[in-house]
Amino acid sequence: MRAEVIAVGTEMLLGQVVDTNSALISRHLAAMGIEVYHHELVGDNAERLAMVIQQASERSELIVISGGLGPTPDDLTKQTVARVLGLTLATDEEALQQITHHFAVTGQPMTANNRLQALYLAGGDVLTNKNGLAVGSFYRAKHGADVLLLPGPPSELTPMLEEVAVPLLRQTYKQDEFLDSKVLRFFGISESQLVTDLAKLIDGQTNPTIAPYAKPNEVTLRVTASADDAGEARRLVATTIDQIKAQVGEYLYGFGDEGSLAQVVVKLLIDRHLSITGAESLTAGLFQSTLGDVPGVSAVFPGGFVTYANTAKEQLLGIPVGVVDQYGVVSAETAREMAERSRQKLDTDFSLSFTGVAGPDALEDHPAGTVWLGLAQRGKQPQARLLQLTGSRTQIRERSVLSGLDWLRRTLLAVK
Amino acid sequence: MRAEVIAVGTEMLLGQVVDTNSALISRHLAAMGIEVYHHELVGDNAERLAMVIQQASERSELIVISGGLGPTPDDLTKQTVARVLGLTLATDEEALQQITHHFAVTGQPMTANNRLQALYLAGGDVLTNKNGLAVGSFYRAKHGADVLLLPGPPSELTPMLEEVAVPLLRQTYKQDEFLDSKVLRFFGISESQLVTDLAKLIDGQTNPTIAPYAKPNEVTLRVTASADDAGEARRLVATTIDQIKAQVGEYLYGFGDEGSLAQVVVKLLIDRHLSITGAESLTAGLFQSTLGDVPGVSAVFPGGFVTYANTAKEQLLGIPVGVVDQYGVVSAETAREMAERSRQKLDTDFSLSFTGVAGPDALEDHPAGTVWLGLAQRGKQPQARLLQLTGSRTQIRERSVLSGLDWLRRTLLAVK
Repeated sequence: MRAEVIAVGTEMLLGQVVDTNSALISRHLAAMGIEVYHHELVGDNAERLAMVIQQASERSELIVISGGLGPTPDDLTKQTVARVLGLTLATDEEALQQITHHFAVTGQPMTANNRLQALYLAGGDVLTNKNGLAVGSFYRAKHGADVLLLPGPPSELTPMLEEVAVPLLRQTYKQDEFLDSKVLRFFGISESQLVTDLAKLIDGQTNPTIAPYAKPNEVTLRVTASADDAGEARRLVATTIDQIKAQVGEYLYGFGDEGSLAQVVVKLLIDRHLSITGAESLTAGLFQSTLGDVPGVSAVFPGGFVTYANTAKEQLLGIPVGVVDQYGVVSAETAREMAERSRQKLDTDFSLSFTGVAGPDALEDHPAGTVWLGLAQRGKQPQARLLQLTGSRTQIRERSVLSGLDWLRRTLLAVK
Repeated sequence: MRAEVIAVGTEMLLGQVVDTNSALISRHLAAMGIEVYHHELVGDNAERLAMVIQQASERSELIVISGGLGPTPDDLTKQTVARVLGLTLATDEEALQQITHHFAVTGQPMTANNRLQALYLAGGDVLTNKNGLAVGSFYRAKHGADVLLLPGPPSELTPMLEEVAVPLLRQTYKQDEFLDSKVLRFFGISESQLVTDLAKLIDGQTNPTIAPYAKPNEVTLRVTASADDAGEARRLVATTIDQIKAQVGEYLYGFGDEGSLAQVVVKLLIDRHLSITGAESLTAGLFQSTLGDVPGVSAVFPGGFVTYANTAKEQLLGIPVGVVDQYGVVSAETAREMAERSRQKLDTDFSLSFTGVAGPDALEDHPAGTVWLGLAQRGKQPQARLLQLTGSRTQIRERSVLSGLDWLRRTLLAVK
């Protein structure tokens, strides 16, 4: 089954508003096993809207349209759908009563065009709008494409879609195909390297499919399987994930939205009853702030140090000026001193330190992107690690923090 | 002049990612007086992408495509554009060198497919990617539609569009209408209040137009004027900004992308030769990290303290346990102690402190969103201020930092 998603609204075409409805609609259709090959966005213009609807009706079995159901003259969706597809519009009496009631209660005058919001595609289903006045509409065509009409404001569309339209579509199209999908998150490997390492697996696969996706400072893969029943789809995904793990498992740190590096690290610390602090120069608190964004982190994180200037390294951590002078602020020695001294000050099990050049200018003859990480662990010698990063100041700082978190993650996994 | 905007990426078609690029592109095209009638979104599928490009080339004079420029087998945009429009691809040697350099510096192996990222439409312009490896491309067709290719990740697309592509398009299409546009950034006033306060000004205006736009934790207005020459357009914008300032000037802190609150505050500190530190509980380094993102901040910011746990407040700042016990960690007294003691420790002119409840759980019977800010200033009594915020943990932490920055901004403006 193939669907097409159309958004209507000039404000989106001008770029003043981002269309988030189409992504939400697509997500729900994908979960039902309905394929979406096209999204279109058109303005409040009857002629161009008609063209897009006509094209969609020729290549898709279901057309989902959001926007243009309101009372103003530029709301044309229902009228245009009816005209292009040869359907008629009818008034839903219950919706009309609700509209009349709304104006009576709020004391606003009800203008005639508000009656338009009670129109639906005759012969189809009316979809109640619990956060607004314009009803939605679902029409099952005898020949050609079915049509689902939804209101534009996300606050109205979301409940109508999730509470009314999705159950109706599931019931109507009794899908014999079940989809399961999982996102795998990687760090420390480039997208191109990942795809090269997994080339045989990716090329050979049609079910599940394996799709790479790179976000800033992150590489992800989505594994999607379809099957006759939900259990089989899940099993297919799990088997493919095992195959992926066998090849690049050391870079895999988490799954889906709940699996950020910081969330994974904080969970490992909490599970193992281990505490953490930090001493940050170029990152200036970004590492600690990233930890601080994870609920429950207070159990393992008492606080720490931002030692941007050398004076602060001495005043807050007691690092002798001689060490920084002798080795330089961008050095393994300074990174190790920062990590170990901050760990001792707050008596934690671990500490991470960050010192380096965020840019745009070089420092001590080191180019922007030269970063030393330090890792101190109770009862062990502190270690240091060099990063050579590229990109903007923000990217270098973010990448430094993620590299530190990944180092910590790997270290924690080795702790029994 | 008519343009069409196409986004390429299966992850967006599945609804896993919302396409924000097309809106940004549209906004810039609109500002140049170029009309956009259609947005399309297709997956990483050569056949359907070819169909969409073919259709766009028949009805538009400029096609802007984002996404699908990367190194993996599902990145097909350049190859498909060349095939459909009868163009050839060439390798940009400078970009290839940059790619080779990136892999040499980072020590990752460079796989063959990375060379694809240096390809551009032969005979056209190469657009440098300062945040990634894939170059963009602009091709001026002798017959048919011009083509602009941009990378998909917003962190790469945004600077390439705004710093390279927009100036190139302006130069290429010498519009006989000159537009000038300025974004005004406000803090401490809601969008609805701003629009109400400026209602007469907004309703009466057609040139310049005044368009409000709310982002998370921020309210902006865009003032756009068109005129026969650039100077006149700038003059119209400046006059309207003066009218806006006369009514709501106290909430206006900056202009455009260079005018974030942190940038404005750091500039004020540098201009006045005043130094700053911080002591952060719920924000856990976010305030200092936000300062640290501004180039040049090292001149006024030596570092500071993350005092998440009460033990850290005592160990790092020397706040007697009795103070926290007596007044509570979420209190004006604790906020003032944190600010003044951190300021004294690092001997700075100012210090900001943050203590409160980020949530999701309440603390000391204070609901999530209860936050005390402390502000210490050399030679003055430290002050405290209560915030009552709503939203997620992340939103509460971010809003706290912005409120602190705005308090500091207003304080610094009063320093002669």
